[in-house]
Amino acid sequence: MSDTRKRRICFPITSRAYYGRSQVLLRKLQQHPGVDLELMLGGSILLDKYSRHIADDIKEGGFSISASLFNVIEGGNHVAMAKTACLTALEATNSLYTADPDVVVICGDRFEQLAIAMAAAYLNKTIAHIEGGDLTGSIDESVRHAITKLAHIHFVTNDDAKRRVLAMGEDPKYVFNTGSLDVERVACVDTDITSKELSAYGVGHDVDVTQPFLTVIQHPVTTESDNRKHLETTFRALAELDMPVVWFWPNPDAGTAEMAEVLRHFREHHEAATEKMRFITNVPADQFIALLKRTSCVVGNSSAGIKECSYLGTPVVDIGGRQHGRLSAENVVRAGYDIEGIRAAVTRQLQHGRFAPSHIYFKPNTSQAMVDVLTGIELYTQKRFHEAS
Amino acid sequence: MSDTRKRRICFPITSRAYYGRSQVLLRKLQQHPGVDLELMLGGSILLDKYSRHIADDIKEGGFSISASLFNVIEGGNHVAMAKTACLTALEATNSLYTADPDVVVICGDRFEQLAIAMAAAYLNKTIAHIEGGDLTGSIDESVRHAITKLAHIHFVTNDDAKRRVLAMGEDPKYVFNTGSLDVERVACVDTDITSKELSAYGVGHDVDVTQPFLTVIQHPVTTESDNRKHLETTFRALAELDMPVVWFWPNPDAGTAEMAEVLRHFREHHEAATEKMRFITNVPADQFIALLKRTSCVVGNSSAGIKECSYLGTPVVDIGGRQHGRLSAENVVRAGYDIEGIRAAVTRQLQHGRFAPSHIYFKPNTSQAMVDVLTGIELYTQKRFHEAS
Amino acid sequence: MSDTRKRRICFPITSRAYYGRSQVLLRKLQQHPGVDLELMLGGSILLDKYSRHIADDIKEGGFSISASLFNVIEGGNHVAMAKTACLTALEATNSLYTADPDVVVICGDRFEQLAIAMAAAYLNKTIAHIEGGDLTGSIDESVRHAITKLAHIHFVTNDDAKRRVLAMGEDPKYVFNTGSLDVERVACVDTDITSKELSAYGVGHDVDVTQPFLTVIQHPVTTESDNRKHLETTFRALAELDMPVVWFWPNPDAGTAEMAEVLRHFREHHEAATEKMRFITNVPADQFIALLKRTSCVVGNSSAGIKECSYLGTPVVDIGGRQHGRLSAENVVRAGYDIEGIRAAVTRQLQHGRFAPSHIYFKPNTSQAMVDVLTGIELYTQKRFHEAS
Amino acid sequence: MSDTRKRRICFPITSRAYYGRSQVLLRKLQQHPGVDLELMLGGSILLDKYSRHIADDIKEGGFSISASLFNVIEGGNHVAMAKTACLTALEATNSLYTADPDVVVICGDRFEQLAIAMAAAYLNKTIAHIEGGDLTGSIDESVRHAITKLAHIHFVTNDDAKRRVLAMGEDPKYVFNTGSLDVERVACVDTDITSKELSAYGVGHDVDVTQPFLTVIQHPVTTESDNRKHLETTFRALAELDMPVVWFWPNPDAGTAEMAEVLRHFREHHEAATEKMRFITNVPADQFIALLKRTSCVVGNSSAGIKECSYLGTPVVDIGGRQHGRLSAENVVRAGYDIEGIRAAVTRQLQHGRFAPSHIYFKPNTSQAMVDVLTGIELYTQKRFHEAS
Repeated sequence: MSDTRKRRICFPITSRAYYGRSQVLLRKLQQHPGVDLELMLGGSILLDKYSRHIADDIKEGGFSISASLFNVIEGGNHVAMAKTACLTALEATNSLYTADPDVVVICGDRFEQLAIAMAAAYLNKTIAHIEGGDLTGSIDESVRHAITKLAHIHFVTNDDAKRRVLAMGEDPKYVFNTGSLDVERVACVDTDITSKELSAYGVGHDVDVTQPFLTVIQHPVTTESDNRKHLETTFRALAELDMPVVWFWPNPDAGTAEMAEVLRHFREHHEAATEKMRFITNVPADQFIALLKRTSCVVGNSSAGIKECSYLGTPVVDIGGRQHGRLSAENVVRAGYDIEGIRAAVTRQLQHGRFAPSHIYFKPNTSQAMVDVLTGIELYTQKRFHEAS
Repeated sequence: MSDTRKRRICFPITSRAYYGRSQVLLRKLQQHPGVDLELMLGGSILLDKYSRHIADDIKEGGFSISASLFNVIEGGNHVAMAKTACLTALEATNSLYTADPDVVVICGDRFEQLAIAMAAAYLNKTIAHIEGGDLTGSIDESVRHAITKLAHIHFVTNDDAKRRVLAMGEDPKYVFNTGSLDVERVACVDTDITSKELSAYGVGHDVDVTQPFLTVIQHPVTTESDNRKHLETTFRALAELDMPVVWFWPNPDAGTAEMAEVLRHFREHHEAATEKMRFITNVPADQFIALLKRTSCVVGNSSAGIKECSYLGTPVVDIGGRQHGRLSAENVVRAGYDIEGIRAAVTRQLQHGRFAPSHIYFKPNTSQAMVDVLTGIELYTQKRFHEAS
Repeated sequence: MSDTRKRRICFPITSRAYYGRSQVLLRKLQQHPGVDLELMLGGSILLDKYSRHIADDIKEGGFSISASLFNVIEGGNHVAMAKTACLTALEATNSLYTADPDVVVICGDRFEQLAIAMAAAYLNKTIAHIEGGDLTGSIDESVRHAITKLAHIHFVTNDDAKRRVLAMGEDPKYVFNTGSLDVERVACVDTDITSKELSAYGVGHDVDVTQPFLTVIQHPVTTESDNRKHLETTFRALAELDMPVVWFWPNPDAGTAEMAEVLRHFREHHEAATEKMRFITNVPADQFIALLKRTSCVVGNSSAGIKECSYLGTPVVDIGGRQHGRLSAENVVRAGYDIEGIRAAVTRQLQHGRFAPSHIYFKPNTSQAMVDVLTGIELYTQKRFHEAS
Repeated sequence: MSDTRKRRICFPITSRAYYGRSQVLLRKLQQHPGVDLELMLGGSILLDKYSRHIADDIKEGGFSISASLFNVIEGGNHVAMAKTACLTALEATNSLYTADPDVVVICGDRFEQLAIAMAAAYLNKTIAHIEGGDLTGSIDESVRHAITKLAHIHFVTNDDAKRRVLAMGEDPKYVFNTGSLDVERVACVDTDITSKELSAYGVGHDVDVTQPFLTVIQHPVTTESDNRKHLETTFRALAELDMPVVWFWPNPDAGTAEMAEVLRHFREHHEAATEKMRFITNVPADQFIALLKRTSCVVGNSSAGIKECSYLGTPVVDIGGRQHGRLSAENVVRAGYDIEGIRAAVTRQLQHGRFAPSHIYFKPNTSQAMVDVLTGIELYTQKRFHEAS
């Protein structure tokens, strides 16, 4: 069996975003002599239409994969999302029981990550959580804090988040502001992307990346019921600006189905409006960063606008409540769900151009700091609410 | 269908304890003209060996039952507990989707209640949580706070708990110290229990309730691995005191199987030691309170020792870490897992006799206050971390 | 509650095909004074991309729906299909337990229907099975016969099937050749479809239904691993014929994902080859029949080619093993998975033109005969293998 | 990974009975150079109260265990049984997907075995079934034949069973009468059991195995609703005979809970009636055989009475319909659920004494014959109904 002196670390990966941001950390853990690393794959990472080739890449990376769980229930609505989480937790329980890790690393705030955290907590595992304490909108807000209250080790990305995690009663000895993995990655990557490379992804019209273009990443907000209308609003606002647009397909959360329908509808029925648009499911993480460097403005509600773009100084128009309350740098302008507001905000950002880099989410050596904690800290399972003295 | 002006309230009940403490609240909700109440039964409440007749009582009570879910996975260990929670959440999702309540009321801190809360949160329901903010030991501590972070309305039982729920970022407008339902019930009940009535429950020897006797309620602590030894310690400590004992069977959590084995072993092999002991699965809630009033001392780690007995002034020896950190009145003496310590603590309590009543967990009209909030307050689903100004 | 003298019949519907063929039967059952009919919806019937509006149609039909279960696990591969079946059975158990029907009617041979049959059998329900005893290829063959061995009442569609069901040990008193519901429907429908109506469905080029055109319905064969290649073969064979084609999107079985990819690939990259093709997810059942009447030849592996077209006399080229062994009339020509063979067979059928109607799958009053049995026969649950004397 | 030239065989074990009867076969497969054997443990085999130490024994036997699945849902009723099967299938799917066996060996007719067979069939595995074609009562009858229709290789135990499996359309090339594993084991074992050894198992009074004694094994019949009454009938019939009785606890099927209650009731309230009775959960397989050799008569509805006892010549009174239709030797006398009938039948058998051995279920080298087929036969997955010519 495995070397009992090694620390067994289980890392569940359920979306391409988590894999992208964790790649450096994963490689460092894999190469650490004191660590037995096991990946657990599930959720959209296994489903071609969202993550083509990512699961294969992971396997080829030489990682040990303890389970590949097909557990996404179709429907794209709340009930499907809830059941996906429950099924994930059920299956994760079996896998965690078999793999018997010392530590389970939970990323972020996706609904299935809470489910896995719950399973791990009931199995008496030590849980490390990456990216607790942030404020946002949507169900993510609740999910993130609930994971914090199940987790034993906290890697937060900024000082505000640290303050909140401590306020929630976590032990200061186990809360670490290591900066954001996404931003560390942005700081390390110098890959570029060409127009030709971009045209190999997705469908629609070619976008010249040497000329000004917008990038849209707008996910459904699971606590809101009019995602379809919100997306249409963004679409109409941008169509009037008559600029090239790289438009990313949303995540497979509740609300996806209707958003997908809107995009398809526009693509098929508003040919004029979409004739400068390219619709992309995903691009490799490094080229995604290159796009963020090149784009004139990021529009939507992705955390990449708040975090990665803070470091890059890329102008961002953040729409609606999904990132509500999240710490942001001066590169971000907020807009509501109205055509005029969005168009005005984008225009303002285009006029301003790039911002100075901000380090609110950046610390050097984020991954290494996490590895040091994960391999060196004393593990515990019985949590106690730590009251500020 | 149901009257759309009524507020639809779903109340999942998964253990006899939750039913016992909620009976008055449930009846008030059922009779309220502005409420459509649906019970969802699951967990041990449906399993004869823990809750004989309780499910039948509920049905006869005229309640509307939206689902009766057999979802307890055998094993009595962590993996069975975790899977039970996941299965409960999966099935609760279907039931909540069908029943479509406005509010889901989550009680306490049992593992399956977090699972139901998670499902309800993903389905965008408003969640009301009873008994948040307390400190205890075991996994309950984490589970309780994680539910708090998913819940929108909080009914806490004491001021310390209120302070913690607020520290965790909950909105003061939605946090109510209504006192404990258990204690309200204790304050209302004046049922007595006779020796003969007691002898109708469980197995073992008769206990004369007009003479001094001990009551043991010691549950497994799911984050500890030596529950069996801990129970043996209590057993040996009490055996030497040579007093009549009413011993309650533990809850069906992880650790139960081994504890059950210890009890069976003692019953069959240490006849002398058990010849003054009666082993009971459960008694009706009112008679349980009568027992707490009559017993000389409660020994173990039940919350009844901390809460109900605070109001009753019943001496309590609280063993180990399960209630660690919970607000307690002067009626409680702590003891570790050692024979001498437990025996000494029990002796001290017997010498002291009953304490003056404490009101740390008591407010008059607890149930009515909850009903008023549940029927009158404006409901919301999008949570925001509320930072203390 | 429901009238206890009525027979409670539960009818699970998990695909649009089952709904289409059962509509007349369902309406007769719904209107029967001695029947309480409950539909249970699940599988693809609830998922927009396969059955847009069908679930809504059902609801508007005034049917009582006991459960709407989102239980399709994404992946389009064997493991997703198997888990979908298991999840369906789990959830069907809860629904059957709550609805407590006297009879559960299982249609056909889809994987989730066996799962529901299994759940119903364990719950001691009487099971009626429609369409047992047929021979086909793929996993359907095994699934169909396994359902037969769990079922108590058998509605077969032809004499060969009846002989096999009896050989398998079923009681002759409970085996009825009522003919095929699909064919009864075909015999009753005189709806037509216009080119314009057809163009309202799906994507691609317009097809003139007054001129010769082919219709393709080729589903993945779950026991074969090269569905992608097989579909490509059909595509290439037809592309060379240079005729208008109405091409139906496959069912959401294992293998679908890769087939969908092939179709998308052809649509986007072989514009010339597809310039006479229209790709359709589905059309209303009556218009589907109208298409079968109008098309020059049906190509693929759908049972509609074998059954509906036998009665209509529509030429059919049946490809591969999916319908292998199924009783067929002279309108069917078999072809293997080779371009030449398929093209030659289609050419031969086009030259022949329509065939005389066959009654191998037809009996008048199929639905009424089923209703008479379902409402009148004595129900039983303990099966006995009936040995031919 | 594993040697690709080896045949990967997965053997799910879900009850102690299956392990007992398969031990020789399992050891032969484990030692075969051409086989990679993986056990999958689930169901009652993992639950202490039914199979104490068996799972540990298996692990110590050096077997490779691909999964240990806690999947028994409490309740002891039909809905719990059905859900257990569904959950088993869901989890088995994941395990089969990971282990990727060439052949899955399904034993007997327990409800969870059909569920595993279903999962294996959907995953396109070759299924070998042991003990198909027998007639019995209860749901086992249907389950067994349904498994036959999903299985590709059939090991039947007697000629009648073979005839039925062929009638059901199975391919004669893949149907083998290898005799019964239980009976092969009986033929090999010469372990004895002493009174002292017996007294180490279970609870109740000592039974002297050198004197006449009865053995009762009466399982619930899941298709009957009055299991409780049936058990009481047996109890009363035997109490009047005033003979020592070794009484085995029933299996954890639907109906168990009420039967357990009857046994507990008798044990606690009819002390006189039970004062010659010993109640046993289980004994090791070899000692069980020794008991069958020593007992004066086996009473109840276990298949051991029909099969093992046919070879041993032990008198048997088979009660009720559970074994209805199963091929039996002259050692078996049938009785209904009435006190007089049972008492008369037992008395008759006691007067007769032991019978001559029968070979209806016996072939020499049963296990080896199975190994030869499992390792040598050509595997296939696409089944075809084989019509008798």
